[in-house]
Amino acid sequence: MLKVYGFSRVNKMARGKTRDLRVLWALEEMGLPYEVVGMDHPRHDLDTPAYRALNPFGQIPVLDDDGVVVTESGAILLYLARKSGKLMPRDLAGEAQVLRWCVAALNTIEVPILTAWFVDLNGGKGTKGSDALHQWGDMRLKQLDGWLAGREFVATDEFTVADLLMTHVLGAGTDESVVKDHPNVLAFQKRCIARPAWKKAFDAYCDRVEAG
Amino acid sequence: MLKVYGFSRVNKMARGKTRDLRVLWALEEMGLPYEVVGMDHPRHDLDTPAYRALNPFGQIPVLDDDGVVVTESGAILLYLARKSGKLMPRDLAGEAQVLRWCVAALNTIEVPILTAWFVDLNGGKGTKGSDALHQWGDMRLKQLDGWLAGREFVATDEFTVADLLMTHVLGAGTDESVVKDHPNVLAFQKRCIARPAWKKAFDAYCDRVEAG
Repeated sequence: MLKVYGFSRVNKMARGKTRDLRVLWALEEMGLPYEVVGMDHPRHDLDTPAYRALNPFGQIPVLDDDGVVVTESGAILLYLARKSGKLMPRDLAGEAQVLRWCVAALNTIEVPILTAWFVDLNGGKGTKGSDALHQWGDMRLKQLDGWLAGREFVATDEFTVADLLMTHVLGAGTDESVVKDHPNVLAFQKRCIARPAWKKAFDAYCDRVEAG
Repeated sequence: MLKVYGFSRVNKMARGKTRDLRVLWALEEMGLPYEVVGMDHPRHDLDTPAYRALNPFGQIPVLDDDGVVVTESGAILLYLARKSGKLMPRDLAGEAQVLRWCVAALNTIEVPILTAWFVDLNGGKGTKGSDALHQWGDMRLKQLDGWLAGREFVATDEFTVADLLMTHVLGAGTDESVVKDHPNVLAFQKRCIARPAWKKAFDAYCDRVEAG
């Protein structure tokens, strides 16, 4: 049975944004059976030697597939897509488009978006450094918006793990402030979170995780 | 013939750090024939509609494999590894370890390292936001240093595209300031850049690209 290490407690600000949801959504899309191992961050479940052996960075999520340990949400999605033959074309040329858009989500887009938020959270709001990060992120979102004009999905004609990843990197509808000025990105995101598998994964997450 | 879009002019600060080198190094490791299409950033070669059609973000590198267009250095490396059967195990469990460490390099490590540098470059040095990014990056490097204790390579027992990517994300020896306090990371990086393929790719790059 696939084992997913996910959060068992999440504060209000992070609710819906934690990366375990990327994996849980993918597993619902793929119809693969799994169990969730709930980790309580404030109670230091991630600081134990046993967990650090799985992931030296102490991050969530981790996938344990009968002893094959995979970390990093993006890597887990690509692994599951290859294992299941779902949410990614099977030919190398098609796979390449999913690869490029998964990496674009995790690097080209997430680098400025995540760190602009982080710097502001740490007292940097309104500083030159913060402004530069916001400008960088806005430029990337504008470019992404252009790419999505006339496209239903980001990598291929069908929904893939790259769409799932891009949607969640941009807040998965839990916070529209990042994408609100980019109509094609917003419409794309709404298309993706309208999928039953997102609703199922997100509802189960909300039922399971404690607040605080 | 594989076509790599790379820089034809690079300023002194960025020399060796541009991401086309990740692909050029991998191609030398794999022994695949290729040609470089030189792009002059200050002369706006990246701003043309033709280039934006290849990569909407206008970034270097792009790989064109007889019409299969791949962007994002990490995606190109994984594509080339799958195509050539080199620098990555062929079984899914082994591939998963390379996937996780490629994503760790591009996201867990590069997010704070790159943005701490970027914020400082944009007038943020010494601010709370910059300090928080540096602390985040230092924490990740310390965790990576622990993982590399007693390990020759980051993902498997052999050199893979994950080692190549991690080495270059950390400056590939062109700037040791990031890794100097982390002895296992430093030794790992030295092992990787001692490989003949890095020297060949880097020397050709230095011969080809103009300064300025």
